[in-house]
Amino acid sequence: MSGSLTVYPMGGLGEIGLNCMALRTEQTMVLIDCGLMFPEDFLYGVDVAIPNFDFLLENRHEIQGIILTHGHEDHIGALPWLLPYVNAPIYSSRFTLGLVESKLREHGLDKYADLRPVEARERVEMDDLAFTFFPVCHSIIEGFGLGIETPVGRVVHTGDFKIDRNPLDGHATDLEGLARFASSGVTLLFSDSTNAEREGYSLTERETKLRLRELFAEAKSRILVTLFSSHIQRMQEIIDLAFDFGRKVGVSGKSLLRNLEIAQELGLLRVPHGVILPLEEVTQRPDDEVVLLVTGSQGEPLAALSRMSQGEHRQLAVQEGDLVIMSSRFIPGNVRAITKVINRLYKLGAEVLYESIAAIHASGHAHRQELRIMVDTVKPKFFVPVHGEYRHLVKHKRLAVECGVAPERALVVEDGQPFTLLPDGELRLEDPLDATVTLVDGKGVGDVGQTVLKERALLAGEGLVIVLLVIDENTGEITLGPDIVSKGFIFEQQYSHLLEDAKCIVLEVYENVPPGNLKKLKERLRSSLRRFFRKVLERDPVVVPLVISL
Amino acid sequence: MSGSLTVYPMGGLGEIGLNCMALRTEQTMVLIDCGLMFPEDFLYGVDVAIPNFDFLLENRHEIQGIILTHGHEDHIGALPWLLPYVNAPIYSSRFTLGLVESKLREHGLDKYADLRPVEARERVEMDDLAFTFFPVCHSIIEGFGLGIETPVGRVVHTGDFKIDRNPLDGHATDLEGLARFASSGVTLLFSDSTNAEREGYSLTERETKLRLRELFAEAKSRILVTLFSSHIQRMQEIIDLAFDFGRKVGVSGKSLLRNLEIAQELGLLRVPHGVILPLEEVTQRPDDEVVLLVTGSQGEPLAALSRMSQGEHRQLAVQEGDLVIMSSRFIPGNVRAITKVINRLYKLGAEVLYESIAAIHASGHAHRQELRIMVDTVKPKFFVPVHGEYRHLVKHKRLAVECGVAPERALVVEDGQPFTLLPDGELRLEDPLDATVTLVDGKGVGDVGQTVLKERALLAGEGLVIVLLVIDENTGEITLGPDIVSKGFIFEQQYSHLLEDAKCIVLEVYENVPPGNLKKLKERLRSSLRRFFRKVLERDPVVVPLVISL
Repeated sequence: MSGSLTVYPMGGLGEIGLNCMALRTEQTMVLIDCGLMFPEDFLYGVDVAIPNFDFLLENRHEIQGIILTHGHEDHIGALPWLLPYVNAPIYSSRFTLGLVESKLREHGLDKYADLRPVEARERVEMDDLAFTFFPVCHSIIEGFGLGIETPVGRVVHTGDFKIDRNPLDGHATDLEGLARFASSGVTLLFSDSTNAEREGYSLTERETKLRLRELFAEAKSRILVTLFSSHIQRMQEIIDLAFDFGRKVGVSGKSLLRNLEIAQELGLLRVPHGVILPLEEVTQRPDDEVVLLVTGSQGEPLAALSRMSQGEHRQLAVQEGDLVIMSSRFIPGNVRAITKVINRLYKLGAEVLYESIAAIHASGHAHRQELRIMVDTVKPKFFVPVHGEYRHLVKHKRLAVECGVAPERALVVEDGQPFTLLPDGELRLEDPLDATVTLVDGKGVGDVGQTVLKERALLAGEGLVIVLLVIDENTGEITLGPDIVSKGFIFEQQYSHLLEDAKCIVLEVYENVPPGNLKKLKERLRSSLRRFFRKVLERDPVVVPLVISL
Repeated sequence: MSGSLTVYPMGGLGEIGLNCMALRTEQTMVLIDCGLMFPEDFLYGVDVAIPNFDFLLENRHEIQGIILTHGHEDHIGALPWLLPYVNAPIYSSRFTLGLVESKLREHGLDKYADLRPVEARERVEMDDLAFTFFPVCHSIIEGFGLGIETPVGRVVHTGDFKIDRNPLDGHATDLEGLARFASSGVTLLFSDSTNAEREGYSLTERETKLRLRELFAEAKSRILVTLFSSHIQRMQEIIDLAFDFGRKVGVSGKSLLRNLEIAQELGLLRVPHGVILPLEEVTQRPDDEVVLLVTGSQGEPLAALSRMSQGEHRQLAVQEGDLVIMSSRFIPGNVRAITKVINRLYKLGAEVLYESIAAIHASGHAHRQELRIMVDTVKPKFFVPVHGEYRHLVKHKRLAVECGVAPERALVVEDGQPFTLLPDGELRLEDPLDATVTLVDGKGVGDVGQTVLKERALLAGEGLVIVLLVIDENTGEITLGPDIVSKGFIFEQQYSHLLEDAKCIVLEVYENVPPGNLKKLKERLRSSLRRFFRKVLERDPVVVPLVISL
């Protein structure tokens, strides 16, 4: 072997989300996935977090292709912020590219994108790299794992996957294909660590559908279903069950409608004639002939289910006896929002089923037994766990060692830590890159940094007090003020005495600071007022002194 | 029977937390529990939420006693905001009162409180009500369920409980006592609904301790344990295991130290001589003789474990190989904070065990089989589920009906919905009370209302822009400004061009508004600037126009 391969992990190795990695040889560079994350800081106005693209932008002319393993946001969502700068073809399944195209259209970027659909098991060459696309089973259709031929031997990247040996509709992970690809030896395996803490096997879609079938068979009422809006396979199950039990399906919610359309156009969803009908027709039918497929599985306040739970949906109202099936996982940060919706639905007389009390959702990520199968199938020399928080990566690494990977060749690598596979078969860590995530707020990308977030946190916590004072520049006398304006601090009418006291403090400070020293006056005003509010209210608002000398 | 009983639920019937209920007869009124809740809105500077006390304050002279079922914050935490106004004796176990006393001392209220310890099975009369205190098993020691004799018959309030028929150290629910109390007939049962969705039986402390014993037996390293700091029974298990395996225990964290002290003073914790040692002595010992009991089970940023995970603890550092046992539940809102700590601990080389991957915590609340046992034991005529979100109350009510309570006599009642048990054996709903929770921010109680919270949310989301303009009142000319100050909006240096554009907009607006109309000028400034920022940045900061005519 000659040449080397350097791996630049930029996201997903240390968090769930943000998946993004570059492979670089002497001749070329290829990007695998370009995902976003919904950050904890979203309360401070941050819309999404995207990987730090500095390295990619510096080397953008080297990038020869972008490969997307599948169409979830944490794998494709950051594309709109990369594509304006990187002009490279994007390879993935037709469905994934359908989602990408729709996303780019929203951002006005679709005209520039060079989307290249690939088929299952197709092989795409890019200089001294070649990628073979192996179907994997996941909670979205048309996902791929990658078999990569490189100058230092073969590399396998699982993408997000689970192993379902008895799948519905042929949605299986192509273990045979991967085994064949691996038979001549694999240097490195990247494998999905999301469920590295979960024993055994993940539930299968077949089991989920069985439980859903029982629910459809028993239900005398309307059935409302909510799910991840890219989960076409689950939608297929719902449509099939509706057909089997003589129900019609009405759909509400933009993302569901869009994804259904994409899947139908591509022939990836079988909808028997007349099963999906306009909402207003479906709701005319008897209760036991109705299925409503609605957005809102995460309690999103503007999604259909949440609006229905508050009686604020234009076309749909919850009815006494409705059966609501939440066929999806509760993402930890959303639990409070989701349970709020559930409680409201119960108040309206609905019955609600969710993952913790009914087997109506199957995870899309391999559990430990499935992860073992993957390692045993690929038998890699080196192992690097991907897609997980640090704890998941550690546990997945240990699992690989249990499966026979040499301990010194199973590595927990974090975002921003590049490494090179060398011609002599060794692995070398490179100098770290900056992997600080980039926050997006509206059109601003990366401008909302720690300073701004900190100010927003302060404003959020205690609110704001503005003190206005106009001073005659000749005499030093006060010509206007002190005036005090507050926002998010107190209810001013209730605390007028307090604001009067605060004005007295302003005057006192003014009298004790030598005339002309505006800077000192402002400083003293800020500190004195903060001390005052802390003392009387135990609160610490942001104080902005506006002192004008005219 | 003559007379009636009115029940005023003020908290806990519709949420987890905030437990508070008054019982009122023609002669007297007694309060059961006075708990707080940590609200979702805590990000906006709110410290805690407490029940709406309006009704209690209006009728405070009637209140003859306050009964606390046990010492958790959601049952005692709101006392500091009630006791300044209500002068009534407080009845509970010695341990619960020990916690109350310590809390009141912090608020400078301990001198006024009339704390009256009661023994297990003691009976306390208050006019035409009498309370018998039955021990219940819960995740805190010395909890009580209540047998209440009233003018309309007997009432049982379970408090928070589980049923452990083979308990450690005799921490059992006194089902025999409750059965005897109930044998002459029970009119109404209030029962804990927290786990009304969980099938079967809760794990027991015996099982938890067995698993902990296995971990202690295997461990060659230091053992760090974190738990709810009021869980004296679990602490006893840890101390016993440390003794059995020749380890010494060091304790870090204020709440742990305080609760240990209270329990030891009351003789409720057996600590073999020399097992608990000062931290600095424990850390001198060989790793396999060390147990560190530390605060931080919920990822609280200032607790010991979190500080250790960041290398910021003054006395303790995490060592490679440390075994960290998080022997507690992850409260949903805290999951992200907790997993952040766990990931950091892994990075420092520790191994971390938690509920989802090891049976090292047992819930303190009865699962469905135990709830059935309670209903079967008490055989109430009426059933009102307490302590739960709406969904839990609904499911618990249904369970009671399955156990034989007449459907029309099993009621989901929410906070603020009083009801009366009448002499003729019927139940009547009364006019609702205002049960809006009261938010506490620093010394302000109830003053942070929806307006202030909304302003804080706006400030948090996009920050603030202040526009300052001074106009000569005679000529109408601008004498100073426009100046623009922003907080939490953008990084000003990066966007100086944008602020210059904004100033031009201010001037343009100024020129197009008739002189002298300051109100209109301010309105137009606000709307024009908001439109501008939305367009160029897709952000919508709070805009405060300060226009001064001098």
